[in-house]
Amino acid sequence: MDAALDALRDALPDLRLLTDASELEHYGRDWTRRWTPAPCAIALPASVDEVVGIVHWAREHQIALVPSGGRTGLSGGAVAANGEVVISLERMNKVLAFDPVDRMLTVQAGIPLQLVQEAACAQGLQYPVDFAARGSCSIGGNIATNAGGIRVLRYGNTREWIAGLTVVTGAGEVLHLNKGLVKNSSGYDLRQLIIGAEGTLGIVVEAMLKLTAPPPPTQVMLLALPDFDAVLSAFSALRDGLRLEAFEFFTDVALKHVLAHGGQQPFDEDHPFYAVVEYAHESEADEVAALSLFEQGLESGWALDGVIAGSDAQAAQLWRLREGITESLARYTPYKNDVALRISALPAFLHEAERLIAEEYPQFEVVWFGHIGDGNLHINVLKPDDLPQADFLRDCERVTKLLAGLLARHGGSISAEHGIGLVKKPYLIGTRTAEEVAVMQGIKRVLDPDDIMNPGKIFD
Amino acid sequence: MDAALDALRDALPDLRLLTDASELEHYGRDWTRRWTPAPCAIALPASVDEVVGIVHWAREHQIALVPSGGRTGLSGGAVAANGEVVISLERMNKVLAFDPVDRMLTVQAGIPLQLVQEAACAQGLQYPVDFAARGSCSIGGNIATNAGGIRVLRYGNTREWIAGLTVVTGAGEVLHLNKGLVKNSSGYDLRQLIIGAEGTLGIVVEAMLKLTAPPPPTQVMLLALPDFDAVLSAFSALRDGLRLEAFEFFTDVALKHVLAHGGQQPFDEDHPFYAVVEYAHESEADEVAALSLFEQGLESGWALDGVIAGSDAQAAQLWRLREGITESLARYTPYKNDVALRISALPAFLHEAERLIAEEYPQFEVVWFGHIGDGNLHINVLKPDDLPQADFLRDCERVTKLLAGLLARHGGSISAEHGIGLVKKPYLIGTRTAEEVAVMQGIKRVLDPDDIMNPGKIFD
Repeated sequence: MDAALDALRDALPDLRLLTDASELEHYGRDWTRRWTPAPCAIALPASVDEVVGIVHWAREHQIALVPSGGRTGLSGGAVAANGEVVISLERMNKVLAFDPVDRMLTVQAGIPLQLVQEAACAQGLQYPVDFAARGSCSIGGNIATNAGGIRVLRYGNTREWIAGLTVVTGAGEVLHLNKGLVKNSSGYDLRQLIIGAEGTLGIVVEAMLKLTAPPPPTQVMLLALPDFDAVLSAFSALRDGLRLEAFEFFTDVALKHVLAHGGQQPFDEDHPFYAVVEYAHESEADEVAALSLFEQGLESGWALDGVIAGSDAQAAQLWRLREGITESLARYTPYKNDVALRISALPAFLHEAERLIAEEYPQFEVVWFGHIGDGNLHINVLKPDDLPQADFLRDCERVTKLLAGLLARHGGSISAEHGIGLVKKPYLIGTRTAEEVAVMQGIKRVLDPDDIMNPGKIFD
Repeated sequence: MDAALDALRDALPDLRLLTDASELEHYGRDWTRRWTPAPCAIALPASVDEVVGIVHWAREHQIALVPSGGRTGLSGGAVAANGEVVISLERMNKVLAFDPVDRMLTVQAGIPLQLVQEAACAQGLQYPVDFAARGSCSIGGNIATNAGGIRVLRYGNTREWIAGLTVVTGAGEVLHLNKGLVKNSSGYDLRQLIIGAEGTLGIVVEAMLKLTAPPPPTQVMLLALPDFDAVLSAFSALRDGLRLEAFEFFTDVALKHVLAHGGQQPFDEDHPFYAVVEYAHESEADEVAALSLFEQGLESGWALDGVIAGSDAQAAQLWRLREGITESLARYTPYKNDVALRISALPAFLHEAERLIAEEYPQFEVVWFGHIGDGNLHINVLKPDDLPQADFLRDCERVTKLLAGLLARHGGSISAEHGIGLVKKPYLIGTRTAEEVAVMQGIKRVLDPDDIMNPGKIFD
């Protein structure tokens, strides 16, 4: 291995290469914290040419590469636990161009999401993909998992905002895909194949991002709701009557954890479910519509209580009740499920899933939240302090297998937005068929003939 | 061949199979009319099982298949000129399901676009992809070319509206891709690979289509403009100040041809360029904004004249000036270019392309029109009546080669929405690199190991 690394140093004398134990540990893990990081080195290229050089070297020496962005992933997609070389894009983090006519921002893949949002904002536009890890995650990682988040309902996933990609494939070829075109019917859209491929086909080094007009003025409402059916009824009623920007739900258990970290109890009483709703508020008529819908909700029983933010500060407070959940659970090293269904399949699924979880997890606290308008539920299982991690994981994986079966029966997916990585790999079959996985493997062989690009992620 | 067809009849006794010469000619061509149809038979399956049976038979007998929808394509993607079996989906043309919660329509792939639009409308929703061939083209063909049309500016291409696909691959496997999910990060999105693949990887047999809320009330304006720069200035100004639903331009030559088929001259004088603009008109303020922008245009010189529709009938009349172009040119068997650029690249490209075309086509009439807001230009060259078709084609192909070079230099695409098929195959390199084409060929081998799915289309 040392000889191989020496060859890399010879081939790319300016490449920054780290091999200190603390660096290997830092760059070898993501937010899953389940695997022991064990890369052999960390490469920090500063140019596309250096990335190409690394890939050619890796092919020659048959060394696996793990592309690395902000390592905020929750499925182990960026974990390096088998002597790989991590390619961190953190030095390739610049805005390369902005075009006001195309409304397009060209960036290096290592740029954090938040800096993309700010660069768009500085131009009077927005990049609308958004989620809580915005400050740490990189756009390259967002592309690798087709990241979703809290605005998908209105703006779609990352996929919709990628007008062009520069990719270094596992064969070491540089492909400039789609080149920022709105329309381009010239053969297979390889850009789409790269998006969501979790770095198993190549490394995204640059991206052309579509921007759009800023959102309208909005209002934020918090609703208290009696049960899952009410969450769905509220969503349907509000979607039909308002222009929704976001509709996020969570349970009383989630709220309890957030409030334990500070913040104010929103209602006098506890309620089983809550929804944060953000909607366009461009005129008095929008407010009248919102109030009227809320009153309908009280009458027909899907709403128990509600509050509308009286100021931007209060709107931010209401949002924190939802956005603070992940952080508030972190100390319980939660086991995360990130499932997706068609919205129409949610009622039947939820009833069965609630029963399954009550039966199988009687000893664990379970926190539900998510993006009901996209059919995306996050089910977090909290580890009791006194239970060893290995025992907890074993139990969770047993139940995840049952959950995966339930999902398959309801036409759902084991991963809505986190990706498959290592964590969900055992459950991929069910969401995807063996035939589909075989096609994926075949495609990987085309773009990555030596299987050096993030091998063992998604599938073996 | 007869023995092979007998084997097909034996394997699928209920399959409707046509071999009459007139049927072979009818089903073997598309709107290009450039190749002599020569399929060996036309299969009209009525079920997914029959499609699977045909593919297994074709693999066994090594017979090429040409998937066939409405055959309104302009790139020869549905041409069968080499003894293939055409699989027409015209009997698989039903709406299978509608779900109001998911806002999703599930259809068989042979259904015409217009029936999809009507089915959506009947549910109080819309399927927003739209173009002039709506009555004849099929949704499967739309998917095969990622069809665009006149609403892309606002709603995107066909790709954005496909929530799920059922595909029979060239290997004869039935894949149910994405299953209608909004979020699904579970490995490669093979659905995206099939969209735009022109039937070279498999046959789309069913699709789950997203629907959306109907468009707002709109207003239609026709502008007279002095030159290409003015067309772009008008687009930028109106995009920033109005909510555009469509922005389509055409030249005086196009208008002359449309008016020769009837219709009313919109202005007292002739002008070099025209634009049909449709924009949301929800309140008085929208109208004030539109008029103010138009006045700005008069002052700064990008607008020469304008008219706003006073009624739905007049709006339809204005639209006919744009939508009637293709039909009005049909008798000249035009040679069609369908190019795309980034909008920001249009000014420089247009100046060079205008010069190129004036120099190279002095003897031909050239008609420009298209979707400027998507960077998509249609350049139609009309055949003089007295010039033999072969001579005309030879001249057009010589110029297309020059145009392709110009496009490559400006980062454009030789096909915006028509696809590559047979017509644009010689010019694919330039828009795509040899490395990209090699990746496409490798992917085709994975999904279509015997090269029976529309072989020779897009690439060899």
